[in-house]
Parts: sequence; structure tokens; C-alpha cells
Amino acid sequence: MADTLTISAPADFHVHLRQGTFAELVTKHVREGGFGLAYVMPNLVPPITTTEEALLYKAQLQAIDPVVEYMMTLYLSPELTPQEIRNAKAAGVYGVKSYPRGVTTNSEGGIENYEAYYPVFEAMQEVDMVLNLHGEVPSSSTPGSNTCVLNAEPQFLPHLRKLHAAFPRLRIVLEHATTRAAVECVKALGDTVACSITAHHLALTVDDWAGQSWHFCKPVAKYPDDREALREVIREGHPRFFLGSDSAPHPPGKKSTAAPSSPCAAGVYTSPILLPLTAHLLESFGALDKLEGFVSTHGRAFYKKPAREGEQIVLRRTKSKIQEVWAQGADSVVPFWAGKELNWEILRG
Amino acid sequence: MADTLTISAPADFHVHLRQGTFAELVTKHVREGGFGLAYVMPNLVPPITTTEEALLYKAQLQAIDPVVEYMMTLYLSPELTPQEIRNAKAAGVYGVKSYPRGVTTNSEGGIENYEAYYPVFEAMQEVDMVLNLHGEVPSSSTPGSNTCVLNAEPQFLPHLRKLHAAFPRLRIVLEHATTRAAVECVKALGDTVACSITAHHLALTVDDWAGQSWHFCKPVAKYPDDREALREVIREGHPRFFLGSDSAPHPPGKKSTAAPSSPCAAGVYTSPILLPLTAHLLESFGALDKLEGFVSTHGRAFYKKPAREGEQIVLRRTKSKIQEVWAQGADSVVPFWAGKELNWEILRG
Repeated sequence: MADTLTISAPADFHVHLRQGTFAELVTKHVREGGFGLAYVMPNLVPPITTTEEALLYKAQLQAIDPVVEYMMTLYLSPELTPQEIRNAKAAGVYGVKSYPRGVTTNSEGGIENYEAYYPVFEAMQEVDMVLNLHGEVPSSSTPGSNTCVLNAEPQFLPHLRKLHAAFPRLRIVLEHATTRAAVECVKALGDTVACSITAHHLALTVDDWAGQSWHFCKPVAKYPDDREALREVIREGHPRFFLGSDSAPHPPGKKSTAAPSSPCAAGVYTSPILLPLTAHLLESFGALDKLEGFVSTHGRAFYKKPAREGEQIVLRRTKSKIQEVWAQGADSVVPFWAGKELNWEILRG
Repeated sequence: MADTLTISAPADFHVHLRQGTFAELVTKHVREGGFGLAYVMPNLVPPITTTEEALLYKAQLQAIDPVVEYMMTLYLSPELTPQEIRNAKAAGVYGVKSYPRGVTTNSEGGIENYEAYYPVFEAMQEVDMVLNLHGEVPSSSTPGSNTCVLNAEPQFLPHLRKLHAAFPRLRIVLEHATTRAAVECVKALGDTVACSITAHHLALTVDDWAGQSWHFCKPVAKYPDDREALREVIREGHPRFFLGSDSAPHPPGKKSTAAPSSPCAAGVYTSPILLPLTAHLLESFGALDKLEGFVSTHGRAFYKKPAREGEQIVLRRTKSKIQEVWAQGADSVVPFWAGKELNWEILRG
């Protein structure tokens, strides 16, 4: 077994960098985790819905860490126009993120049906922007409906198929897939449809978040067989499946449920340990040789975002314990698997 | 709509009364919740495995509240012999509870396969004791296995069928059923097989415990369609389905997850509000007319435990807010739906 691994230009194609002092804490963790590129989610409060807001947010992130490349996105909402899509493209914004209403953190302004957005998608297809889908339907309280967090993703897939049929040249990413059904659906669609997978969904099943709020995220981790499907498609080296960490920091008090009336925040935080964690996990299921494809080349090819010259990270095989907490000023954040041991660490120059 | 409801002799056929000062707090809640009979689970630390221990525990409970009737059970374990079954029966112990290993609170000593216990079951059938089954198989970490908390109950049902086939006269209760599969299985079996249903599983689905540790229990609440099956069989008034609250108190600190490394305790606590809560829920799905059957006559008929003369509880239709916490000395416990409003309360004489 090799003692070191050199990975070209790791890129995290789905990350939450938050706002204010919390952003100052967590944005630095992109690079700490071995990544030089962050595809940035727009679900701030209020959400990023205009090019101007996206550029302002990008400048704030660059002020925190100017070395990382930030690929910016807009939040799909009724305010978004085809003209704004063209403005966004011209300004270097890469994608538009769609959240079904109410399914995850700060998604209260999410969409309910897609047809109203077809003119926007038409413009996105024309200028070659990417549509990023949070692929879950909202749970239903309608009598007779069986929709809940466990089947919310499979029930979304017909919407994905319909969108791809209507806009076959539109690049679409089904984000943070968690089910065998989603993997099979994306594989069966054309080359313009890809899929991001988080690191934590390669580790967790429903048993891990049952009674363990630190492992609770949306979409929730599903059955063991669903996790196996995610692992299989990575072992296979399928080029349309790549890492998007969905690393989602929350203040620790919001992760440990205090009150019977308030559930904990959804999200698992992996940024500061992302590359060693991903290497550790891929090795655990026999896919270490697919690491560079999964964390760099597949996503970069789909997003048409080549690596910067000479950018690479070296991992060293050594037992390293995951730090329990990262803090700065009044802010702190607890990582996934806090206190556990990984088999890899980043060799720092 | 009637303003009062008179219910004859409510009986809770599955409850956890704990030990020590915690037992002193929670045992009183049986009567506070409107119940005069408690079928007591044996999963103490260490578990109740002998007749002598069961009688001692019963005396401790009677010292706390002598008005309630306590039906005692033994914990199925390798120590249990056919002779001890006969001793237990003679001493008035009613049942034997089987826990699969490691699936819930204090089940580390649970069983792994039933054939070793056939001589014990033979004796139980002969003396007419009841076998209470925690009907879940343990989650598996074997590669290729898809067993997890979501299908642990359906995967247990072949064991139930096999036990019933081997011991057709043995009275068996499948405890706290949570799935349509379990309801259909029990309906299809003979008159010696019954099923308890908790109040909280009539309210919750998987969405309610996702990120909400206060709603986390074992078995976990399942899909909306599973909850609907529980509601349907109660609306139908099926005589082999009755209330067993599985009311399971834990110190509040063990319910709100504090540490990333330790999941919260499994259990929902309903004892002090049990009858008003059950009335509220049954009314919400059109089964209020089945309340007495569900909370009293069905279970009493199956257990051959008639009501004591004149024992009845009157419920009054009025909005009543659920107390946030019950405390005594250093102990406290937070009920299900703390702070929420019920449509019924007990009329106290």
C-alpha cells in the first residue's frame, strides 16, 4: 500500500459557507480540508437571488480566503428572469440552485412546481449555466399520501426526467443523491445530467441518525442498500458522479436538540476533514484508486472548470484523530466523526 | 359530540416503571394517566429473570402506588427454565418478554435465536403464560445485508409465524407494532396471537423523529402508510389489537443528545397523559367510539384479566395543555407533546 497519494486540484462541488462571523470561521475550512475550489450554495438569509448579491458574497468569501476559487450560484425564485440569467452568466456565476419548499435549511422560499421556471431554464440552457437540484419532494400531510423523508428523493426523480426531456442540453446536477433509485436514474439519463454525492452519505445509514442528531441531514441517509449503490457507482468510476460535500455547519447548540418543541438543524459538517475523510471512506469500500476522479476530474469535466496549473494535495497514510471542535471568537462548529480516527491526513508543505 | 366519556377500567398492557427514585416518580403516573393496571416490563438493570425478583419488584411498585394492579413479567434469558415458568405462573407472574439482542434500552442480554427456548415456550403454553415479543431483528453490518431500523419489524415476522406454528396454543403478543406488515401478519394468525399498539405510534411518522430526539423510540415510527394501518385496525375495532403504551421514561439529559459520540436514549413518555392522549388521537382519526375496546376490553379479554368492579374513568372534553415536565427530588421526566394541547382531560372526582 502506498504511503502517500497525490491528488490533483480537489474541488468541492456543493458547500455551504454561511454569512457573517460564522462564514469567517468555516470558509477557511475549505482549504484546511484539502480543497481549492468551492461551489457555493446560495441559501443565505435572505437567499442570493441576483447577480449583484452573488458577486458581493463572492467578494466577502475572497476577503476571508483569497486562495480558494468560489463558483457562485443563484437561488431559484420567482424573481429570477431570463435577462438576469444572462447577466449572471456574463458575471461568471455558474449555476442556479433549486430547493423544493421547506425541505432543508433556509428553503422556505423554495419552488413548488417547475413549469413556471421554463423560460429561466431555456435561458440557462442557451447560455450554458448549470441547474443544481435539491432532489426531494416535500413531505405531505394529505391523508392517503405516503410521502416522507424516506421516499422524498425517489418521488422527485420523475421531475428530473421531465426536466431533462424538456431541456436535453441543460446541464443538471442532482445534488447529494442518497438512494439506489437516484443513482440508476442519473446513469440512465444523458451526458448533461450528473450527480453529486457527499462524503457522509458514504458512511451513514438510517440507523446512524436514529436518535443521533449530529448525523441528521437532508436528505436523510437511507437503507444500507442505498448506501451500497453510492459506493458501487464510485467504485465503477462513473464520470458523471462526483463529490459535493454538502458540508453544512450549524452552531453546536442547534445540532444537539434541547427542546421537545424544536427539532435540531439538518446538516453534517465535513469541510475541515473532507479530503482525508473521503480517502478513508473510499479505501474502506475498495475505491481508493477512484479518489482523484471522484474529488476532482469528474466534477471539473462536467463543470468545464479545469484545474489551475500545479495545484495538488498530498495525502499521507497515518492515523489522525479528528479534532473535536473548531472555534473562532464566539463561533464554533463540530465536525462529522469528531474524535474518531482517520487513516489519512494531508501532508502540509 | 358528547362532553364526557366514561371508560371502564383502562389497562396499559406495556409499560416501563424503572427502578429506585426514578420509579417513585414515574409509577404514580400510571394512575395520573387514567390507568389502574400496568403490565410491567422486566428490562431493569439487571433484568428481572426470576420469580423472586419479579415479586420483589412488584412489592416495590405497590409500595409506591398500592391502588394500581401490576402484572409482572420475566426477561427471556438462558437462565429461564421450564420449572421456573411453573414457579412464576404459581406466583401470579403473567408473561415472559423477549428482547432481540441490542435493539432497545437494556436489551444487551436479549435473545439471538428462539429454538433454544422451545422447552421454556412449551412450559409457558402448558401453564398458559403469555409470550411478549419485541418484534425486531437486530440491524446488521454484514456487507450485502439491507437490515436496518426501518425493516427490522417486517423481517421479524417470519419468526412470529414460526413460533405460532410451533406453539399454536401459546398466547403471544407482538408488542408495539409499527408497520402495515405487522398488522396484516397478526390479523392473519390465530386467536392466540395479539398485538399491542402505542399511543405515540398513532401520531408519529419517520418525519417526526428525523432530527427530533424526543420522538425517537424503538421501534422507530415508520411511513405514513404504516401509521395508517395502525389507525385502520383500531377504527375496525379488531379485538386482538389493544393499547400497550411502551411509555418509557428517561432523564431529560439522555433524551437531548449532547455529544456527537453518544446517541440519545430510545423512548417516548406518555404515562401521565395516556388516556386523554389516546382519546385525542382516536378522535382525530374517527375511532373515538373504539376507545374503550382499545384501552380496556380487548386487552383484558386477551389477558383474561377482568376489570375490578366499579372501576371507571370519566373524560371531559376540554382543551388542556400538557405539562412540560414532572419532577420529584432530583428526578424529572418530560412527556410526549410537552406543552401541546389535548382535547380531553380526566374528570377527577
